[in-house]
Amino acid sequence: MSGNSFGESFRFTTWGESHGPEIGCVIDGTPPLIPLAEEDLQVWLEKRKPGQSRYTTQRRESDRVKIVSGVFEGKTTGTPIGLIIENEDQRSKDYGEIADKFRPGHADYTYWQKYGIRDYRGGGRSSARETAMRVAAGGVARKVLQHVLGSSLTIRGSLVQMGAHRINRDRFDWGEVDRNPFFCADADAAAEWGDYLDGIRKKGSSVGAVIEVVASGVPAGLGEPVYDKVDADLAKAMMSINAVKAVEIGAGFGSASLSGEENADEIRMVDGAPRFLSNNAGGVLGGLTTGQDIVVRFAVKPTSSILSPRKTIDRHGAETEIVTKGRHDPCVGIRAVPVGEAMMALVLADHVLRHRGQIGKL
Amino acid sequence: MSGNSFGESFRFTTWGESHGPEIGCVIDGTPPLIPLAEEDLQVWLEKRKPGQSRYTTQRRESDRVKIVSGVFEGKTTGTPIGLIIENEDQRSKDYGEIADKFRPGHADYTYWQKYGIRDYRGGGRSSARETAMRVAAGGVARKVLQHVLGSSLTIRGSLVQMGAHRINRDRFDWGEVDRNPFFCADADAAAEWGDYLDGIRKKGSSVGAVIEVVASGVPAGLGEPVYDKVDADLAKAMMSINAVKAVEIGAGFGSASLSGEENADEIRMVDGAPRFLSNNAGGVLGGLTTGQDIVVRFAVKPTSSILSPRKTIDRHGAETEIVTKGRHDPCVGIRAVPVGEAMMALVLADHVLRHRGQIGKL
Amino acid sequence: MSGNSFGESFRFTTWGESHGPEIGCVIDGTPPLIPLAEEDLQVWLEKRKPGQSRYTTQRRESDRVKIVSGVFEGKTTGTPIGLIIENEDQRSKDYGEIADKFRPGHADYTYWQKYGIRDYRGGGRSSARETAMRVAAGGVARKVLQHVLGSSLTIRGSLVQMGAHRINRDRFDWGEVDRNPFFCADADAAAEWGDYLDGIRKKGSSVGAVIEVVASGVPAGLGEPVYDKVDADLAKAMMSINAVKAVEIGAGFGSASLSGEENADEIRMVDGAPRFLSNNAGGVLGGLTTGQDIVVRFAVKPTSSILSPRKTIDRHGAETEIVTKGRHDPCVGIRAVPVGEAMMALVLADHVLRHRGQIGKL
Amino acid sequence: MSGNSFGESFRFTTWGESHGPEIGCVIDGTPPLIPLAEEDLQVWLEKRKPGQSRYTTQRRESDRVKIVSGVFEGKTTGTPIGLIIENEDQRSKDYGEIADKFRPGHADYTYWQKYGIRDYRGGGRSSARETAMRVAAGGVARKVLQHVLGSSLTIRGSLVQMGAHRINRDRFDWGEVDRNPFFCADADAAAEWGDYLDGIRKKGSSVGAVIEVVASGVPAGLGEPVYDKVDADLAKAMMSINAVKAVEIGAGFGSASLSGEENADEIRMVDGAPRFLSNNAGGVLGGLTTGQDIVVRFAVKPTSSILSPRKTIDRHGAETEIVTKGRHDPCVGIRAVPVGEAMMALVLADHVLRHRGQIGKL
Repeated sequence: MSGNSFGESFRFTTWGESHGPEIGCVIDGTPPLIPLAEEDLQVWLEKRKPGQSRYTTQRRESDRVKIVSGVFEGKTTGTPIGLIIENEDQRSKDYGEIADKFRPGHADYTYWQKYGIRDYRGGGRSSARETAMRVAAGGVARKVLQHVLGSSLTIRGSLVQMGAHRINRDRFDWGEVDRNPFFCADADAAAEWGDYLDGIRKKGSSVGAVIEVVASGVPAGLGEPVYDKVDADLAKAMMSINAVKAVEIGAGFGSASLSGEENADEIRMVDGAPRFLSNNAGGVLGGLTTGQDIVVRFAVKPTSSILSPRKTIDRHGAETEIVTKGRHDPCVGIRAVPVGEAMMALVLADHVLRHRGQIGKL
Repeated sequence: MSGNSFGESFRFTTWGESHGPEIGCVIDGTPPLIPLAEEDLQVWLEKRKPGQSRYTTQRRESDRVKIVSGVFEGKTTGTPIGLIIENEDQRSKDYGEIADKFRPGHADYTYWQKYGIRDYRGGGRSSARETAMRVAAGGVARKVLQHVLGSSLTIRGSLVQMGAHRINRDRFDWGEVDRNPFFCADADAAAEWGDYLDGIRKKGSSVGAVIEVVASGVPAGLGEPVYDKVDADLAKAMMSINAVKAVEIGAGFGSASLSGEENADEIRMVDGAPRFLSNNAGGVLGGLTTGQDIVVRFAVKPTSSILSPRKTIDRHGAETEIVTKGRHDPCVGIRAVPVGEAMMALVLADHVLRHRGQIGKL
Repeated sequence: MSGNSFGESFRFTTWGESHGPEIGCVIDGTPPLIPLAEEDLQVWLEKRKPGQSRYTTQRRESDRVKIVSGVFEGKTTGTPIGLIIENEDQRSKDYGEIADKFRPGHADYTYWQKYGIRDYRGGGRSSARETAMRVAAGGVARKVLQHVLGSSLTIRGSLVQMGAHRINRDRFDWGEVDRNPFFCADADAAAEWGDYLDGIRKKGSSVGAVIEVVASGVPAGLGEPVYDKVDADLAKAMMSINAVKAVEIGAGFGSASLSGEENADEIRMVDGAPRFLSNNAGGVLGGLTTGQDIVVRFAVKPTSSILSPRKTIDRHGAETEIVTKGRHDPCVGIRAVPVGEAMMALVLADHVLRHRGQIGKL
Repeated sequence: MSGNSFGESFRFTTWGESHGPEIGCVIDGTPPLIPLAEEDLQVWLEKRKPGQSRYTTQRRESDRVKIVSGVFEGKTTGTPIGLIIENEDQRSKDYGEIADKFRPGHADYTYWQKYGIRDYRGGGRSSARETAMRVAAGGVARKVLQHVLGSSLTIRGSLVQMGAHRINRDRFDWGEVDRNPFFCADADAAAEWGDYLDGIRKKGSSVGAVIEVVASGVPAGLGEPVYDKVDADLAKAMMSINAVKAVEIGAGFGSASLSGEENADEIRMVDGAPRFLSNNAGGVLGGLTTGQDIVVRFAVKPTSSILSPRKTIDRHGAETEIVTKGRHDPCVGIRAVPVGEAMMALVLADHVLRHRGQIGKL
């Protein structure tokens, strides 16, 4: 057990189930004297909050985060930061069917195999509700990065594929991300996806997605070879998000098809500083940041909560069928965008603090 | 710093540089009373050993592993296992050019940024030579898995793509893997790849690859949500291997294009046990093993050591060009097959020991 | 930073300041299916609760613990257990003097040196109020021990010295511990200490103490040499309690004066089981439990909160004097008894879970 | 298992048995660019080396340490430092008696209980031979401290009690420590102890000791409350040394007898800097360094290897007697002095690196 913490020098631990009284997290390792208010975290939670459009679950949660320790007179004290979000919309319903049956494609079956008991209300601990605390903690991570690195760092995410539909890279514009309900940097694609996802939603189906998260302004040299490489930690971070099945950096799977000549990003000096002529590396070489943009993509599978009946078994080993009613996201990948951004911030904050104090650079 | 260990309950730490006197590792957490001999580890090292065919580097290393502690009278004692491999072929040469210039696509630049010093001989610590210790440690991991789980578990890997050339899944046969120099389960593809790679090699170029590693016979319920999920740890493990840029589980990036109906693996009872009707999950749901095959793929970029001159800078910030001569692998993905198998074994051994003692199942 | 967790396989992390809204902890690693209710924890908190007699601080806290996650339908789920205690009696007062001056013998000065900021209200994070969460977590640890080991294990503590006054070992009776306000196993000593401590209290002074904690019924073989020896972890656990300055096991400092013949506990067989003829080892040899009683003693210094003016400086470096008014314990060692018991339970639960699954013994 | 590492940011892991081919350690977390040569470590190993006088074991080991990785052209590279010492004097003898019988007061019995197997040759992993690697690693720690803090820090140890005989504090002189075979700061006491220990040695008995280790020039503010307090880590570090049964800081157990007025070290300004008027705290308040001398004492029990027959059992449960012949230390506390110094250096180096980068002070 004991897998509910992430990070070494900036380490957070979460608790709480989907339908318990609250979810929370404790962050250990935040440097002192960083200005921090609840509003600094709330702004990110608003992006992830359910019920923002018809494309996400209609569960109603105000998702107000409270800072219960580690901040004094508006500044961090260097002691553990406790964060709490109360669960509000734990709608009373009959969980009998889900309690006994295993939803195909869901953690129901494996939690039962591991623990021999599970809180079946809304998925319990396996619910994506846990990711709200990642987003809140990610808000603290962003403040740490800003404090240590200055204002140079930005972390942004975009949905770049919904179902089989990819964005057009020529239309990529970060400015579009907050102008559509899909956090999509391609406005035309977003417009098309609206109709597409309405169709999916109305027939009670679901669809997968690919998210791209980019960090700009990261200093060179972050990462701890040979196991805690920054890309290895990013891969773990993204793969730990609910429903994620794949992660790639830079050219990713495409790098397999490149020749050595094509793949190696050449270097020139521009304005007295090294500049790479391409970024197949995605900002990471040998597990260390190059100073270029860190570019990570991850795939989110379609949710298993669908209206079509699926063959399954119950916990007594009897064959049966299951239909999942209730409030669900037709494309869980949408709300994974702020979660992916948060995990990027959390990994970078951890590595910045692990590296801090080295050879005078940070 | 401090990133040279992997695993929690079965934890190994490596040291050593490409051209130092030796490389080694210490494994902490091996249960006592497991029969273990050097030959149990050597068999896997032979797969990875350089110079086995014209398709891998011609560096000559016998790669004989010595067990220097933790085994008494042929059995593990439960105390740390020390493993050592002496470096033999540290060919004397002029490293002057590499010492000063940064190879595009290589860790040269980032190590210099992080540490301000680097052992430039053959890549020093960033060299893939370090992976020999992963393979040796993986051999111990296999013994642990066999000891705790019985003989049911198998871990096998295959090259499934070289450059842009993929295998034909209809011809997939694990029996072919050891019959060609590419560890490829498709004999016809392997035959074609031979000519293709000769061409790459002769012109001093290099090419990427995709490797698939499959673990069969894994019990259900392994993994430690919500951060040390078994797929999250596998993603980290594979991404930590030199030159890896992407990792996916089961349907992976393809799952983005699936509908919820297509993606969810339905369950039936067969011979009194749960049986999934498909394996888009790749053996992992909610970060826990389902009992199905664990299927992981990862992409390896082409090596940056190529004969074509590339634009770069030296450590004084002057623009220059570089050509990498010497002994190198035209497709480093080939030797990544036994390394990927080893990382799978190491992750599973760790999770088996973390889970051990739970609810009477292991 | 990042020092707010304890344990490896049974790991808890605390947060919260003396005068914040709440204190809390999250426990990661509790096995599933253990019956657990708030009352199982509350019983231990009652022992530590302030204001129980005139010999402890008059701060009024009901110290009601709430379980906010990790328990479902009365049983642990194997997921993180969240515990919360709301602070109630955060008496409004003028902290101006303490805010600026450093109390000699207190963490004021060092927290200022480390963090450059501190929550001066009631000591903030350095307050012994944090130990309430240790006691609550210790309650969970006791349930784990009971679940894994059966009902055989008992953990008991006694004050064995107050100021320079030691108990008489001939009168030692565990049955007396709950019959006097000092948790003292020597009833006569306790009677004398009452008058003694009244005198200390009335003149606004304070006094130190020695506590002995004994665990009986511990199986042999617990501990993880050579650094996570069970006695090493106990030493760390006890020394981490506020105001503790010394720890010893078994004969402790007295063992320095023994000859090898006197010190070595001889072994005989009694009723088919090994029996030691003495226990100078205090139940630990080579860092592993022997199966005998584990006997640990630790010294608690007198609190620095006293009415006599003491020379000090303020945070601007000016020399001054300080008098600490307010509600304080004349002998903080008294309430350290349940805290010491809790730390014993926490260390043993951690080691039982680390060892679990080994050679069929647990 | 997995207890063979120590430290967080400066982390070392040891392996090797008393009579295996070698002992070794790997240190992860050493900053780059620190000048380091084998001689920097050898100087400390010479203090601990057996056979230096008639008062220590006559085993002959040259104890030459080799640096096998992590240093390039005379400087650390920031990658793992591997250290190896070959065992030389593995005298061939009949271990039959020890192999079957458990020595009272030794780890024989508990290792057997934990692991079900043990390397009985010379104690295997439980042998104090392992402490040679602590001393070597401690040498690296001293270089780290010197590098980060400048030359201000000194760490010194003295035997302050042998058997029941204590030194006279009025005669304490660090300059004497290297002038007698007991590392004793009281020359007169050392002279008396020579005859005393000869008597012990000749009758094949053994005796305990108390060691004091003092670190001067430590900056204020080191430590990670509330569990990784610097005194908590020191307590663990010292208690993890073979045969140690007690640890205290500053006034230690004596603080129990002090009043609050006596105990609290008052503060004045001297030459513009805070100066404490006493050091009952032993340099640690609230788990953080005060800037005063850190003063730690620990008790070492007499070795169990004695010539008098002792009652015991064998591993088949039969009652028997045992006499331990062979080469042993009549007072193992003597050689514990350099080991205690090394553990102090290792704890401080770890905390300096954990704290590094904080509020501009280090």
